[in-house]
Amino acid sequence: MKVLGVDLGGTYIKAAVVNEKGDIFWKKTVETPAGYEAVAETIAQLALEVIEKHEIVGVGIGTPGSIDHEKGVVRYSPNLKWRDVPFADLVTKKSGCKTYIENDANAFVLGEKWFGAARGCEHVVALTFGTGIGGGVISHGRLITGHMGIGAELGHIIVEPYGPLCGCGSRGCLESIASASAVARLAKQWLVKYPGSMMLEMVEDEERIDARVVFEAYKKGDLLATIVVEYVSDAIARAVGAYVQFFNPEVIVFGGGMARSADVFIPLVERRAPLYMMPSFVGTYRIVKSELLEDAGIKGAASIVFENLKYGGRGKNGTE
Amino acid sequence: MKVLGVDLGGTYIKAAVVNEKGDIFWKKTVETPAGYEAVAETIAQLALEVIEKHEIVGVGIGTPGSIDHEKGVVRYSPNLKWRDVPFADLVTKKSGCKTYIENDANAFVLGEKWFGAARGCEHVVALTFGTGIGGGVISHGRLITGHMGIGAELGHIIVEPYGPLCGCGSRGCLESIASASAVARLAKQWLVKYPGSMMLEMVEDEERIDARVVFEAYKKGDLLATIVVEYVSDAIARAVGAYVQFFNPEVIVFGGGMARSADVFIPLVERRAPLYMMPSFVGTYRIVKSELLEDAGIKGAASIVFENLKYGGRGKNGTE
Repeated sequence: MKVLGVDLGGTYIKAAVVNEKGDIFWKKTVETPAGYEAVAETIAQLALEVIEKHEIVGVGIGTPGSIDHEKGVVRYSPNLKWRDVPFADLVTKKSGCKTYIENDANAFVLGEKWFGAARGCEHVVALTFGTGIGGGVISHGRLITGHMGIGAELGHIIVEPYGPLCGCGSRGCLESIASASAVARLAKQWLVKYPGSMMLEMVEDEERIDARVVFEAYKKGDLLATIVVEYVSDAIARAVGAYVQFFNPEVIVFGGGMARSADVFIPLVERRAPLYMMPSFVGTYRIVKSELLEDAGIKGAASIVFENLKYGGRGKNGTE
Repeated sequence: MKVLGVDLGGTYIKAAVVNEKGDIFWKKTVETPAGYEAVAETIAQLALEVIEKHEIVGVGIGTPGSIDHEKGVVRYSPNLKWRDVPFADLVTKKSGCKTYIENDANAFVLGEKWFGAARGCEHVVALTFGTGIGGGVISHGRLITGHMGIGAELGHIIVEPYGPLCGCGSRGCLESIASASAVARLAKQWLVKYPGSMMLEMVEDEERIDARVVFEAYKKGDLLATIVVEYVSDAIARAVGAYVQFFNPEVIVFGGGMARSADVFIPLVERRAPLYMMPSFVGTYRIVKSELLEDAGIKGAASIVFENLKYGGRGKNGTE
């Protein structure tokens, strides 16, 4: 059985034909046009290209923002600047193929459950470290979405009450300290105190310091990078303490661009997380790197369809 | 349909015959004997007293500690000092009546869903403020227990990274700041700075200051009490921010002994909680006082049976 997985971003639309094992048969990336009608048309055209040849049984779309997955409505997307767009129905009509839509972080955790690091797990917490921090939770085999479909938002837990101001208006959210952009910002802020940092030699212009540079410099023993990475890992460990105690997961998956450096920070997070949880939870979970990485978006989107076909969707009352 | 609900504590066993509407037909409290065999015998005797007359269809036991509700095993109970006791089977054998056991905080949230402030809700967060802080979560209509049955532990989220040392070994857990005993401890600690506090006149001996006294003094405008209550409410608000963003609940129920003063601190928590969550979550939930209060233990225990009879228990894989 094959489906079309669509990773809908503000700049690009990435699409792929994926089967239930996660094999990819076709892949295409196009620019995101302006306006939801044009975006729906573009996705429908991509679907029509492959529907017959691959016998596509459904289209799954993952996109950032607040999604009512039950009604298939994009409530609010800051990236696309949409409000209350009944997008799934629109694509279903234009393509003739049943379309499902879900928040991209929720799609990510579904993708890891179907095809990635959380295969066979019924209790999974997943985080994507990118410009922001997205999160999704599978509990007792199913996605936690909450009564309005806007859960589980894991990146805005307060880990440092008087910490940096976050875009959401709170202070000291995990996202304000541990997203890829926050890591870069912290390093640049503190450069004035560590003017000998090798990071200055690693880039042409100090403005080009990004999370990747920080983690590279950490591996080489740079002091500023060490301070930043330890500070960030401690903040992540504090959030992990909450995730573990609330959801009692088997596995916590770290994804997103910054997960390419997960081999550096996972051991640091593992080391400190026990400080932030009851003893009975210590050793009950694993922290692992996403197995999907580059394909996380399209495979996550594809898994939305498989999840819906398997369980028939999740109604407001939790029954199928 | 009637069941026997049993609230098993370290000092007393409280039992009641309860129907699915929450009506109580019979009630009895006895002292908790030493040793799990004697406790099982005592509960079985209570069951045998009422089984025929009330046509009891099951026994539900709520107790503090780590419970494997699926196997009916008390993994670890600090109050009773038990480890790995297959208690539900023991009571089933002695009484001839099918027995279920669950952690008391999980029983509490089930009780509020079946009979209390969360009737008809599918997404509920519940906290009990007592000597410690217990918590339970219903998501998509079902209890979240996690892969080992030890979730959702809500009271040990870190709300102040360098805060007071908690019994669990962490610093600044919600429990270390906002449990009834923490509220009393904070007031007594700070008395030396506020020697004019009216709390000193409200009790014979300053050691007798408890949470109730603090909230009474707050209502009368006492400065120290105001500082304690505002500090505690802010800590609770920070935790509420996490609960709301993770679970997107319709309702958050505050119970336990300290909930008798909930009319004082709920408005304070409501006022500050928006500081600690993304704007999209503001206004999506209600915070309410437990409706069961005195009977929360026995009604919660009774609801364990109704929940199991309705859904047939919850297997490890989330299927029924």
